[in-house]
Amino acid sequence: MPTEQTVYDQLCDHARRTALLGSIESLLGWDERCLMPDAAGPYRAEQMTLLAGMIHDRQTEPRLGEWLAELAGGALARDPSSETGATIRHLRRQYEKKIKLPKSLVEELTRTSVLGQQAWQHARPNDDFKGFAPLLEKTIRLKREQAEALGYAETRYDALLDDFEPGELTSNVARVLGGLRDELVPLVAEILAGGRKPDVAVLGRGYPVAAQEAFGRAVASQIGFDFGRGRLDVTAHPFCSAMGPHDCRITTRYDERFFNSAFFGTLHEAGHGIYEQGLPADWFGLPLGEAVSMGIHESQSRLWENFVGRSLPFWRHFYPAAQRAFPLALGNVPLDDFYFAVNDVRASLIRVEADEATYNLHILIRFELEQELIADRLQVADLPAAWNEKYQSYLGIKPPSDADGVLQDIHWSAGLFGYFATYSLGNLYAAQFFAQAGSDLGGAAGSLESGLPQQFARGEFAPLRAWLLDKIHRQGQRYTAAKLVRNVTGRPLEHAPLIAHLRGKFGPLYGLA
Amino acid sequence: MPTEQTVYDQLCDHARRTALLGSIESLLGWDERCLMPDAAGPYRAEQMTLLAGMIHDRQTEPRLGEWLAELAGGALARDPSSETGATIRHLRRQYEKKIKLPKSLVEELTRTSVLGQQAWQHARPNDDFKGFAPLLEKTIRLKREQAEALGYAETRYDALLDDFEPGELTSNVARVLGGLRDELVPLVAEILAGGRKPDVAVLGRGYPVAAQEAFGRAVASQIGFDFGRGRLDVTAHPFCSAMGPHDCRITTRYDERFFNSAFFGTLHEAGHGIYEQGLPADWFGLPLGEAVSMGIHESQSRLWENFVGRSLPFWRHFYPAAQRAFPLALGNVPLDDFYFAVNDVRASLIRVEADEATYNLHILIRFELEQELIADRLQVADLPAAWNEKYQSYLGIKPPSDADGVLQDIHWSAGLFGYFATYSLGNLYAAQFFAQAGSDLGGAAGSLESGLPQQFARGEFAPLRAWLLDKIHRQGQRYTAAKLVRNVTGRPLEHAPLIAHLRGKFGPLYGLA
Repeated sequence: MPTEQTVYDQLCDHARRTALLGSIESLLGWDERCLMPDAAGPYRAEQMTLLAGMIHDRQTEPRLGEWLAELAGGALARDPSSETGATIRHLRRQYEKKIKLPKSLVEELTRTSVLGQQAWQHARPNDDFKGFAPLLEKTIRLKREQAEALGYAETRYDALLDDFEPGELTSNVARVLGGLRDELVPLVAEILAGGRKPDVAVLGRGYPVAAQEAFGRAVASQIGFDFGRGRLDVTAHPFCSAMGPHDCRITTRYDERFFNSAFFGTLHEAGHGIYEQGLPADWFGLPLGEAVSMGIHESQSRLWENFVGRSLPFWRHFYPAAQRAFPLALGNVPLDDFYFAVNDVRASLIRVEADEATYNLHILIRFELEQELIADRLQVADLPAAWNEKYQSYLGIKPPSDADGVLQDIHWSAGLFGYFATYSLGNLYAAQFFAQAGSDLGGAAGSLESGLPQQFARGEFAPLRAWLLDKIHRQGQRYTAAKLVRNVTGRPLEHAPLIAHLRGKFGPLYGLA
Repeated sequence: MPTEQTVYDQLCDHARRTALLGSIESLLGWDERCLMPDAAGPYRAEQMTLLAGMIHDRQTEPRLGEWLAELAGGALARDPSSETGATIRHLRRQYEKKIKLPKSLVEELTRTSVLGQQAWQHARPNDDFKGFAPLLEKTIRLKREQAEALGYAETRYDALLDDFEPGELTSNVARVLGGLRDELVPLVAEILAGGRKPDVAVLGRGYPVAAQEAFGRAVASQIGFDFGRGRLDVTAHPFCSAMGPHDCRITTRYDERFFNSAFFGTLHEAGHGIYEQGLPADWFGLPLGEAVSMGIHESQSRLWENFVGRSLPFWRHFYPAAQRAFPLALGNVPLDDFYFAVNDVRASLIRVEADEATYNLHILIRFELEQELIADRLQVADLPAAWNEKYQSYLGIKPPSDADGVLQDIHWSAGLFGYFATYSLGNLYAAQFFAQAGSDLGGAAGSLESGLPQQFARGEFAPLRAWLLDKIHRQGQRYTAAKLVRNVTGRPLEHAPLIAHLRGKFGPLYGLA
């Protein structure tokens, strides 16, 4: 009879081999979005469907259930935060979810996701929601089917949310985001009503692509993205993807007439990438080598993009280099004006280009709409109108086209329902982590030489990175998101740190009371 | 009981799904050589090993043997050149080969191939044959094991050659290449002894990479490579790879100080790509959608690179565009001087940059050495000395380093033994096909307006491409290489057309008798 350890080792070997297949799927997805010729789309969908089916077969093999049953209640499973305990806990959780899904549904979801993204890529530039609608309808039908197969505690949407924020409930997310909204809406109103406005025209001057790429690479590298174990490429809808323990690829897009798009996008994806690169490589393919949740992942990208990258000390360090990189655009622009411009707050149409304050309103709109879609209370045909209404009511603006409205995000085309909420959770986690890092590393309360802002102003990002590595990255999935936040900050997730951060930054800039 | 047709359909579906996995392996290999961060190498080897094992499992499933047995002697298998007959014949041949190979050997060959290529990529720039030798020894040991497992008619090398030139025997290749050598050596001596030499310095003037890329793309597109179904990327050792029926990727490398490297390399790979893109897409993954052999594949690349791309009519059309693309390098160079320069014949070190005449001597050296290695009559430790001796005896030169000697090619590092001979076979096939195309399309014997040279001079390559598509590409593997050559040209493979082509071109250029 095999020992407990032998069974555990078999379980881990099996998961690692499944992850090998998953990493291949990641490469195919990355290639599809960055490089693949359009004409190859249908065959790529078949390749990915085949892999998804094979992965599902492996994830639902009966011997997994047998191994997990043997390990249940044993010494290795006892402490859920030990290496073995966390591994068994996650693998059991995954197995129990996967066996509820028929393989045919998994394959159909994959195929529809790939074809959906391809359809979206054509629909958006052509402002063709109608042409895209049938695939979206099919996707939503399949997602409902998925949720029903998986089961849920309160609402069907819970089952989908769980894929991205494990163990989280829709009602709890709604509660936290509701609390945020209640303070955010008046804050945004206060900012927009004030008399001050930055001159954002400087961000729309000519920024040559080659200079943007060189500058973005240099900064990403300096904050800690390791190009020896990664790449930066161009795509329409930027993302970060790891296809191995030493192969993390980030993407961006360049707009000669808008500095923010590529630069803050690169910082954002580099933040995701630094997390991926900080996960323990030896554990790749096992829970301790994987990110906790999409919300925690997003906290890392937001932290580098906004809390670091949109801070004054950051630009005290990098602005001279930026002026050298873009002499025609920035040569005669004072640092303070530039800093104000990259912190422009305004009601705008495009989520990924929204400022830190209004961003969460974009998320709330999507979070609410997708709950309606999954609950079958909103039909796809009525979605553009519902979208436009929400933008009117939350941000006071109306999209002039679906391309800049309901078609702007890739997520729904890819079957990513339940994902958007994690963006706002990420902002909340980021604020709470960053406040703690500031305190641990001698920030606001520290000496002028040793605080985080002083470090940033000197171009030193290694201490913050080391803190994140230690507290978050190298933990993998040892703890749940809720437990991790408590461990690191001593408090449950709350919206106060984000509001404090926004007030602290925008108060002086916009002259708020 | 299933009908013959049902069994045949199952067999084809099975092969198509196996090909899906193979196409994924192709993407991983392409990515590894073009884009992957170095640090990701070991994990990539594991990914590819896993796929190779899975593919092998599928290719050796007992039900394949049962299906093939049911089909043997039936109506669908009767005519070996019919769609069904050719399909069954190839799938049976493949099955019978694959079941002779243990899966462990297939996996070890794959892993060693990927790691071998990675080791080679480091060894070559460091001129470090010693560091590379252990992996090469292992590769050769595995290839011998493979050959012994497969069995062979005359010599162990036959079994390896068969992977690239199905059904061909080493003795026959040696006979054909021997015949070629006997006429080629005096021809090369005659050329080298003559007084005329082109001024090749013009090819070493500055050729900016961006202009090279734009010019290369434009020409590849004009001769018929479809960028809507393919890509052109940069790599250290150029190749062409298809990872789907509409996804064929060619690669090249740019040298600012040598025009030929990227330009003729791009034409060469585009020739491979045009063949891949001409294979019937509906048959992708089945024998009728695959290339006949590496020799036939190489005939297509050589044909476009040399017979078309190094001809005077081709440059009559493209030279003005080349002068516009490279005004500093070519602005004051007359067409005839440029044409002579790209047809420089000389004893040189690097195979891929060798001229049409001496190229086959580079191949003979490798063909002879690898037979010795596989037969265990030559040890890896003695390989560099043996290499250098052969270069002395065939070309009268001695490599100054292993980097420009025995380490110059990626093939052996990737386990490609039995491959080199197909390059010379490709030259022979190309000459024979091109002569036939010239005759069919009103070439030498045709009117001045309608012959191939006149078409090239007008920038018309569609007629030649259509001829190749009809005669060769769209046939897939319906015929063996030997039968295809007979079908298309009415004669067996012979070396006379290549010698005639070389005499016809170099005679006037070098003022031969």
